[in-house]
Amino acid sequence: MSTTSTPASRHNISPYAQALSCDHYYHLGLDTDMDLQALFGDVKYFVMMGSPARAETFAEVMANAFVEQGLPKPTVMRLGKTERYSMFKCGSVISVSHGMGGPSLHILMNEVAKLCNHVGIIDSVRWIRLGTSGGCGVAPGTVVCTTQAINDEIKPCWRTVQLGKVFEIPTDVLDMQFVDDIIASAPEDIPVVKGKTMAADDFFEGQGRTDGALTPWYTEEDKINFLHRLHDAGVRNIEMESVALMGFCQRAKIPAACVCVTLVNRLEGDQITSTKRQLAKYNEYSIRVVSNFIATTQAKIAH
Amino acid sequence: MSTTSTPASRHNISPYAQALSCDHYYHLGLDTDMDLQALFGDVKYFVMMGSPARAETFAEVMANAFVEQGLPKPTVMRLGKTERYSMFKCGSVISVSHGMGGPSLHILMNEVAKLCNHVGIIDSVRWIRLGTSGGCGVAPGTVVCTTQAINDEIKPCWRTVQLGKVFEIPTDVLDMQFVDDIIASAPEDIPVVKGKTMAADDFFEGQGRTDGALTPWYTEEDKINFLHRLHDAGVRNIEMESVALMGFCQRAKIPAACVCVTLVNRLEGDQITSTKRQLAKYNEYSIRVVSNFIATTQAKIAH
Repeated sequence: MSTTSTPASRHNISPYAQALSCDHYYHLGLDTDMDLQALFGDVKYFVMMGSPARAETFAEVMANAFVEQGLPKPTVMRLGKTERYSMFKCGSVISVSHGMGGPSLHILMNEVAKLCNHVGIIDSVRWIRLGTSGGCGVAPGTVVCTTQAINDEIKPCWRTVQLGKVFEIPTDVLDMQFVDDIIASAPEDIPVVKGKTMAADDFFEGQGRTDGALTPWYTEEDKINFLHRLHDAGVRNIEMESVALMGFCQRAKIPAACVCVTLVNRLEGDQITSTKRQLAKYNEYSIRVVSNFIATTQAKIAH
Repeated sequence: MSTTSTPASRHNISPYAQALSCDHYYHLGLDTDMDLQALFGDVKYFVMMGSPARAETFAEVMANAFVEQGLPKPTVMRLGKTERYSMFKCGSVISVSHGMGGPSLHILMNEVAKLCNHVGIIDSVRWIRLGTSGGCGVAPGTVVCTTQAINDEIKPCWRTVQLGKVFEIPTDVLDMQFVDDIIASAPEDIPVVKGKTMAADDFFEGQGRTDGALTPWYTEEDKINFLHRLHDAGVRNIEMESVALMGFCQRAKIPAACVCVTLVNRLEGDQITSTKRQLAKYNEYSIRVVSNFIATTQAKIAH
C-alpha cells in the first residue's frame, strides 16, 4: 500500500487527528479534553476480546493473577461509555470488548491507537486479542497463538477498500518473540500451539458451515476438502478478526498477539460435542494464558 | 450465485439446519428446544439497529406508538442472552441490536431467519434496519430510505467469500412498495428521502475520513472527489451494514428496509457541527419514522 507518513512518526500516526483541538474517540466515549494521561499513561497492554462480559471477567482474573505473582491487587475500573465497547482498567492492563467481526475491531483499534499516541505510550504498548475459535486439526481446548493471519481467500493479507481502491495489507506477526514469550509462560495444564489463523467475515458459510440459514451451494465433501486445504496451508484455527488485527498492527507498527482457544475440531464436525463443563474450562484457557503471561512479565520487572 | 434449493422453500432455507434435532441459535442464546412459537409466533417485524441501548429505547417508543394509535400497550420483554446481541419483544415487534459492521449483522440475520422459519412466520415477516449514518449531499437530520445498497467499490452487491470462492450477491431492495409505504407514513416534521446507501467495512479510511489513526494515502481533494462520485451515483448516505442486509434478504426473499438518519453532510466536512440537542433529535428521527409506520399499519389492520 502506498502511504505517505511524517518522518518523525515511525508508527504512521495521522497528523490530521493530532491537529484537532479536541479529538473525540466517539465509539469509546472518550475525548482529548479529558485527562487521558492520568487514566492511560501507565498502560502496558491493551487486551481485546469479543464480548463485554468476557472483558469484565478478564479484568477480574487479571487482578487476581497480579496477586498470585506477589504484586499489589489493582482496582478494576470501568472507563468510557458502554454503548459499543466496554472498557475496564486493571492497573497497567486495559481489557476491552471489540464486538464481532473485523469492521467492529477495526474501529476500536483506530480509536485506541490514537489514544495510545496521545498519551505517549505508542512506542511501548502491546496489544493482545484473546477469544474462542474453531479448530483446524487440533483437539478442542487447544490454545492457538497466531503466527500469521490468513484471509478467507487463504491469502496472508487484510483486504481494505479506500476511496473505491482495493488494498491488501500484509498480516504477518510483527514480533514473533512476543508470541513465543506468551507460549513459554503458559500454564503446564493448557495445550498451546503456534499456527496460522484464518479470519472469515461470517460464522456460517464464510467458515464453511452447513448449519446457516440458507442452503449452501457446497456439499459436506467440498467443506471438508476446503478445511484440509486450510490445514495443509498451516491454519490451526478459524475466527473473524485476526486479519484486521494483524493488518492494522502492521501499519501502526504495534506488536500484537492473537491467542484463541478452539472449541471444536472442524475437521471432525461442526457441532460442539464437549460438555458444558469442558466448554467453560476451555473458555478460561485463553484468559489464563494471557493473564498469566502479563502477570509473570510484570512481576519480573518489579522484583 | 449458483445455489441448490429444496422446491418447497421459496426462501432457500437450509434443510441442514432444519434436520438438526435441536438447533442452537448460539449468538442469540435461544434454541429450538424452547417454546419459540409462544415467543415469536405472532411477530410481524424484526427491527434491527446497532446498539443495545437503542434497541431497548426503540422497544419502549414502539409500545407508546401503539398506544397513540389506539392499540393496547404491549409489555416490553427482554429475550435471549445479552452477550452479543440484545433482543426485546414489544407485541408483534422484535427490537434487536446487531453491533457494528456487516459480519456482526450477518450472524444475527442467519439466526433470526432460521428462527422465523422454525416458527412459521418467514412468509409474512418484514425486517427493518434503522440507525445513523453519514450524509452525502443531504442536510443533517435527513432520514434516508435505501433504494439499493452499494458496496465500497460502488457496486450494487454484497461480496462474500465461501470456501475460498468470491461471490457477489445483488443488493437491490426486494419490495420497493414496502419502502414507499414507510416514507408515506413519516411524520410531517421529519425530512425523508429515497436514495442509495453505501456500506463501508470501516468508519475511518473505508468512508474516506481523514481523522483515523493512520496517515491516509489520499488528500482532502481526493476524498471530496470520491464523495462526489458517490453522490453522482445516487448515494445519499454512508453506513456499514446495508450491503450485508440487502444481500442476505435477496437470498432469503425477506422484504427489508434500511432507514437511517444522517448526522453530517460529508460533502461539507467530516466533523459533526450540530449541537447535542440537535443530534439527540436527529437520533430520534429514524426511530420515530419506523415506530410510526409499524403502529399506523397495525392500527389499520386492527380497526
